[in-house]
Formats: sequence, C-alpha cells, structure tokens
Amino acid sequence: MTQFHSINAVTGEPQGEPFAVHGPADVAALCAAADEAFDAYRAISNEARATFLETIADEILALGDDLIVAAMSESGLPRARLEGERGRTMGQLRLFASVVRAGAWQGIRIDPALPDRAPLPRPDLRLRMIPVGPVAVFGASNFPLAFSTAGGDTASALAAGCPVVVKGHPAHPITGGLVASAIAKAVAACGLPAGVFGHLTGPSNELGAALVQDPRITAVGFTGSRAGGLALAALAAARPVPVPVYAELSAINPVLLLPEALKARGAALGTGFAGSLTMGAGQFCTNPGLLLAIEGEGLDAFVEAAKAGVAAAPAQTMLTKGICEAYRKGTALLAEQEGVEVLAAGESGEGSQGGAVFFQTTAAAFLANPNLGHEVFGASSILVRCADAAELAAVLKGLEGQLTATLHMDDADEALAASVLPILERKVGRILANGWPTGVEVCHAMVHGGPFPATTDPRGTSVGSMAIDRFLRPVCYQNLSDNLLPAALRDSARGDGAPRLIDGVLTL
Amino acid sequence: MTQFHSINAVTGEPQGEPFAVHGPADVAALCAAADEAFDAYRAISNEARATFLETIADEILALGDDLIVAAMSESGLPRARLEGERGRTMGQLRLFASVVRAGAWQGIRIDPALPDRAPLPRPDLRLRMIPVGPVAVFGASNFPLAFSTAGGDTASALAAGCPVVVKGHPAHPITGGLVASAIAKAVAACGLPAGVFGHLTGPSNELGAALVQDPRITAVGFTGSRAGGLALAALAAARPVPVPVYAELSAINPVLLLPEALKARGAALGTGFAGSLTMGAGQFCTNPGLLLAIEGEGLDAFVEAAKAGVAAAPAQTMLTKGICEAYRKGTALLAEQEGVEVLAAGESGEGSQGGAVFFQTTAAAFLANPNLGHEVFGASSILVRCADAAELAAVLKGLEGQLTATLHMDDADEALAASVLPILERKVGRILANGWPTGVEVCHAMVHGGPFPATTDPRGTSVGSMAIDRFLRPVCYQNLSDNLLPAALRDSARGDGAPRLIDGVLTL
Repeated sequence: MTQFHSINAVTGEPQGEPFAVHGPADVAALCAAADEAFDAYRAISNEARATFLETIADEILALGDDLIVAAMSESGLPRARLEGERGRTMGQLRLFASVVRAGAWQGIRIDPALPDRAPLPRPDLRLRMIPVGPVAVFGASNFPLAFSTAGGDTASALAAGCPVVVKGHPAHPITGGLVASAIAKAVAACGLPAGVFGHLTGPSNELGAALVQDPRITAVGFTGSRAGGLALAALAAARPVPVPVYAELSAINPVLLLPEALKARGAALGTGFAGSLTMGAGQFCTNPGLLLAIEGEGLDAFVEAAKAGVAAAPAQTMLTKGICEAYRKGTALLAEQEGVEVLAAGESGEGSQGGAVFFQTTAAAFLANPNLGHEVFGASSILVRCADAAELAAVLKGLEGQLTATLHMDDADEALAASVLPILERKVGRILANGWPTGVEVCHAMVHGGPFPATTDPRGTSVGSMAIDRFLRPVCYQNLSDNLLPAALRDSARGDGAPRLIDGVLTL
Repeated sequence: MTQFHSINAVTGEPQGEPFAVHGPADVAALCAAADEAFDAYRAISNEARATFLETIADEILALGDDLIVAAMSESGLPRARLEGERGRTMGQLRLFASVVRAGAWQGIRIDPALPDRAPLPRPDLRLRMIPVGPVAVFGASNFPLAFSTAGGDTASALAAGCPVVVKGHPAHPITGGLVASAIAKAVAACGLPAGVFGHLTGPSNELGAALVQDPRITAVGFTGSRAGGLALAALAAARPVPVPVYAELSAINPVLLLPEALKARGAALGTGFAGSLTMGAGQFCTNPGLLLAIEGEGLDAFVEAAKAGVAAAPAQTMLTKGICEAYRKGTALLAEQEGVEVLAAGESGEGSQGGAVFFQTTAAAFLANPNLGHEVFGASSILVRCADAAELAAVLKGLEGQLTATLHMDDADEALAASVLPILERKVGRILANGWPTGVEVCHAMVHGGPFPATTDPRGTSVGSMAIDRFLRPVCYQNLSDNLLPAALRDSARGDGAPRLIDGVLTL
C-alpha cells in the first residue's frame, strides 16, 4: 500500500485526495532533518521561540473554515466543539509562548565560586535546563486539533526547544495535513530550519514503531490506546539508548458520590452525570467511567435520574468505525460479567454510532473481577454500590492509576472525604470536588497525568504549562568563562525576568 | 546460604560477625512496612522532616570512629578520604533539610477561580508535588558512606517524603549496618514509623531483583555497574506497573586538551591529569578515562609528564577483589586492541591492588572500535590524538552519554571551545573548564547525571539538591474546600516562605 484515504466518520466512505503511506525512509529523513535543526532551533532567543509558537497559532486560524469542515467530516464531532477546540489549540500555543518568555523553564541555578572556602574552594557552578532533542508525537483521535498535530505534546516540545516529528493520526489526515501546513508556514515565516517540524502520514503501526526506534528521537509523546502505548513504550525501552515515553493510556476516572451530597441532590447529580458521560459520545480520557457510592438516602434518586438521562441520550457518531466496534464489544462484555446489571442504555444507533450504557454492580463483584475496572472508551460507566465507607476505601485501594478522581460532597461529608484523600492522591493526577472531570483547563496548575496506566510516567502532565518540563534536562556549567556561558547564565543576564536560584535562594 | 561475611579489602579475609542473607520474605516485609509508613511519613511537616534528616546526620556522627574503621577495612580507602566522605554524607543530609524547609520542592502552583470568565468560568486549580512512594536504593561500592546506605539517593528520597528500602552493598556490610542503625535511631527519636527506613543485606542479585519487582516500590536509585543497572532497569520496565530507575551506569568523562592550553602548560596538565586519574585508585564515576587532543605544540610535554606521573603512581588497594579483577581484565583487553599503545603503567601491586595504566590511540582507531570507548572502572585512561578540530568533533559526536566533559583551555581557545560546546551539551550532564572532573560539589547547581549510559534517566541528578525532584510527582486539586486542601495550598499559607506560581506569576 502506498496511499490511503481519509474516511468520512459519518458515512464511512473514503473522501478527498489520497495521502502517502510513509515508510522507514521517510522516518529516517525527517528524523535526520530534526536532528540537524536541533542546535539551531534551541539556540534562538526565548522571544524568537515565543513568536514562532504564536505564529503557528495565527497560521492555524488562517486556515479558516476549511479546517473546521475537515475536522467535522473526519471526526464526526460537531462544529461548536471543533471551533472551541481550535481556540484551545491556539490558546495552548500562546500559553507556551508566555511560558517561554517568562524564562522560568530554564530552571536557572547559580552557586557562585567560594575561592576562600576551606578545606577546598568551591568552583563556580551554574545550571540550566536544555531541550532533550527531537521529539516524536503521536496525535490522539479524540482531539483532532488540541491533542493532535499541533496539540499539547507538540506545543510543549516546541516550547522546550525540541524539533518535533508528528505521526499524524490516520483518522484525520486532512485535518492533520492542514495543521502541518500551517506549522510549516510558521517555520518558514520565522526563518527556522524546515527540520524543526516533520509530519508523517500512514495508517500502519510499523510507521510509529520506526519513528520511536529512530536513534535521533529522544522522547515520545503519545495519547491513545493502552495496547498501542505499551507497545511503543516497550520499543522505546528496548532501544540501544532507551528514551522516555509520555503515553496516556487509559482511565475510568472514579466519581465518588458521598452520602450527604447524595441526600441533598441525588437526582441533580444523576442528571449531571448523564450529561458528562454522554458529552462527545464519551470519547474523553477523563470520562466518568466509574461511580462509587455508599448505600443510603439519595442513591436511588441518583440512579433514577441517571437512568433517565442515559436512556434519553441520542446515539452519536463515534470517531472511527474501529473505536465504535471496540466500544460495542467492550460494553457487551461488561454486560455479561457476573454481578453486572445494565441499568440503562441510550439510543444505540447504526453504523459507527454509539449509544451510552450505564451499568451497576456491587463492591464485592467489582473487587473480584479486574475486568470491571478496565476502560471502555466511549459513553460507558459503571456504578459500584458499596455497603459502607470501609468497602468504598477497599475499592479505591484496588483501583489502577487514574487521570482524575471526583468527590461529590457537602460540608458534612468532609470527614469521609478527608479519609479517602490520601488514597486518591496515590492513585490520580487530579482530584476535583463537585464538578465533572470532563473539562480539562489549560493553565499552570493543571495536571493531566497520573500513575500507570493512566500514563506511563506520572512525573509529568500533558495539559498545561508544566508539560514543557517533560522535554527538558539539566546541564551544569562549572567555571566556564562568561564568553562561553549560555547567555541566560551570565551575571549580566540578571534582571531579565527569569527566576534564579542563587546559592539556594530564589531570586526574581 | 543463610549468612555471609564482611571481607577485609586489604587481606581478602572474612572479618567480624556474619550477616543475614535476606530473601524474598524479607523484601516483602520491609516493602510492606514502607508502604504502610508512607502516608504517615509524607504527612509530617517540612520542619519535622528536616529535623529527621538532621537527626540522621547527628546519629551518623555519633557512631564515632567505629564507622571510619569499619569503612577503611571494608573498602581499603584511607582514613582522611573516609572522614571527608562522612562529612559529605552529613552535609548532604543537612542540605536536603534546608531544601525541605525552604518549601520550593512542593512546586506550588495556584490558578484561582475565574467565576465570571466567558464562555465558561475557570475552577480553582492548585498543584503541589507529592512523594512518589517507597523507594528502593542500591548503594555504591566506591562511596561506602556518601553514595550508599545514607547516601545521596537515600537522603533525597527521604527528603521528598518517600520511605526508603536500601539493599546494602555486600562489599561493606559492617559500614552499612552501622549507618542503618543510625538511621533507625533517628527514625525512633523522631517518633516516625519504623517502616520509613528498611535495610536488606545479602550478596545475591536475586535480592535486588526481588526488591525492584516488589509492587510497593515506586522508584529505584542505583549506582553501580552497567550490566547490573541495565538488568534492574529491564526488570522495572517489565513490571505490571513499571517504575522509573535512576541508575548511574558508566562514563569515561572526556577531557579536551585544547591547543593553546597545551602550548602554555602541557607538562603541568600532564601532572594534574595523573593526579586526578590515580586518586582513590581511579574508582570514581567521574574519573578522566578519555583524553582528547589535537596534534600540536605541548602535547608531547603533556604526554611525558602524564607518563611520569602514572609510572610513579603506587599500586592501591581496590574496593573489592572482583573490581580489581575486572580492572585487570579491562586494561589487558584495551592493551590488545588494534592501534592502542600503552604509554605508561604504574606499579601493579599484588592481591587486590590495582595500578594505573595510560594508553594512547588515534582518532581513526578510536572511531573504528567501540571497545575503546567503554569504561574500565579504575585508574585507566586513553589519550586519543586527533589530526585536527574536525576529527576532534567527530570523536565527540561518536561518544556515548557521559557524566562530565572537561575543557582545558586558554582565552585563545575560546572559538574552538564554543564550537564543541553544543556537542558536549548533548552528551553530558556537566561541562567544566580548567579543572578535573573528579570533585563533585554537593550544591544546588550540581548535575551528576547525563544521557544514557551515564545514567538511565538524564532528566535528573543524583548529587545536589535537585536530586529530590526524582522522587516527586504533581497532583492537582480542583475546587477543593480549604479544609480539604493540603495546608501549603491554602490561601492562609501564603507567606510561609515557599515560592508559589500564582496565575503564572512566581511569587515569593
């Protein structure tokens, strides 16, 4: 196969011009170009790099409605959602521009020489973070803009000073191609080497494998299936020079319905849950796939309202036929499990449309069967009814790592909430109260990450400004002359706005 | 085997009382205790944790001369070196106490709610770093105090709030046992759960494997052989829940002798080199195992002085018989390689004594044979003679990752130095000018780390205050009430001295 087509998510039919199926030679060429461009790219000023990121945002906007129309046809997602996602994509790039300008990303530390120290003098030691090198990015299918070609991984890697080679998601090649063309325009407009950004297309796993194994790739960003991410992580670990893989794999995002909150507003919570579950056909990494409640007043009202909401939910076109098939298989399998009951199902639809399914089970059944804790990507969720707080804690302790945990609670639930918080902190990247996990704010304090298998590396986040840290590593300069020191580490650079840890004291 | 003995490094004879050979049941018991202790330990105040670290330092000093005598007999290292190393060990603990008190390790970020933002309000988002969980530490043989039981990895993990389970190095069980008893005393004196620190003894690799595979271990610190570290990293990557391994594996630490410096002081550099090479029988991770020079004035003078220094070096007792045997085998193998010449050898000694060996080869031979770039642990070093700057750059580009690179240079060498700096930055963790790499300052700006195989994770350092970051991960709290928020994230905690990134603005 040398070519492949975009598939219309609604009709399932091929559309538009064919795309090249790239192979190992293309991977090698783009990675070589990225490696070649690295030193020049990382040497430009913070201002120039920030401007580049902003130029990408501008060029994405300049693609106009063609981009939205393409993304709608390839993803089945509605216009309003994709326009919002475009704004988010541009916002991310601009956030990283501001982060690059602020300079804290350099992590400057200076321990000045102590020539008179006894018994030995201290040399002059200065540290800064540098970019790791060319980064491979695998776009996600469920955010064709914000988590794909110019998404969070690409934006944070470029912000760090790393050239990026994207393997475009085969579910949206037209969208990805348009965005790649916008980035290439920005590269040219900013006078950067073309190798700063590379874009590979093709539907095969071999292409991704070749990219991760290329010796010039120094880190990998991935959002997608657990099987796919684990395969890439294994390849990366087995390289002669292993590299980190920041893969977001799976999560069911437990939502705890605490007793007083249930008592006060069980029905409203049920309606809110159904809305969060079915939004975007449930195709969010932070979809509330697990509900936990202690038997008591308000739980029945929650269930009734949730059932009504789910039953009334229209079927929605899913991102791809493959995702829809996996969703149907996953929900069918869940329905067959011992002790699992289907409480409600939405309109099931046809073709690649998926309908919401709402299950319930007991804590005992959940604890006995690991299958009940696996993600079914889509609008599937299971309520686990716990006899008491001890059983609730046992279920939490048995969970795999998650992106989020949610507490629905009233003031009177505080003691119970406080008792489960330490468990949750060890399981998740974000803990939220009285909301739904499906909105992920792009800001400085966001953590979109978490213990395995939520991600393969809980030390980072893939959303928010801290994402840049994944693509940096420290270098120390000892007794280098001013002429040789990187500009930001010279004494003359003080006052440039970047914070510095000088002799252990943080200085602005 | 249920017991093993300490071996006197000089005589090779067993000494003292036997030690238990721990097995899987001991690993499970200590890891369970560490896991059990984790929540209590991470919940204590910064002040209490800092005091605990200082108490460990005090208790190590309180061991008195017994500790120094034990370490001398087990390592063959001289008194002055071990007294210095004890001071360094205590200094590290105190440095981390100051880091814990300063509070920046928490990485606090606060994005306050924006209830009136359109189209959607922003929730209140607060981030802090939390410790990852129980950490396994493998002590190094070459620093029986500063890189072993209470060494840098242990100190930084405890500082982060992680319980530690140490696999004591079998080359110094008496020393390790004494230090472990000092830590246990500090644990008790500070009223902490005993599981905060565990100590395993035994000579087998199986013990280490069981420790890395224990499901309660969340990260691993290791300093030792490339084969050993890679084996542990492979086990860690293959776990059902993979965990990071911070392993320091191997380095030959290139030293560049730039032309003008050679011209000005070739002989003095040769003498200085021999001193750095032979210090501590060359048993430093940062030992200068590779010299790079361009043919020209002063190189012969360097070689003659280095030869004289190496030839005059007395044989020194190495840390273990095994290390000495590997050193002899490694130097013999190097001497046999095509194009390699032995320039000088020190006194060879007997038993487990090792003598320095100084080799030379051409850039062409070095580039053609990867064996020439492998570490031989001990006082072995090879001079690579380059025809010109292009050949020097080619040799640098072909190197594996390293802990350090050193530039011996004069002002007139600056252009050449500037041209190789970008290459060095991509290869090493620390670049130094006009010194020798064998002194590693414990401070804030130190990086003792570097690209693979110098370490398995170049994003961290194992020396200096930044080492704490390896054992932390971020958690975000969204819309949590003040009562539930961790104390440091509450508005009322402002002014506690910890820096905060508030709405993207760093605030002291």
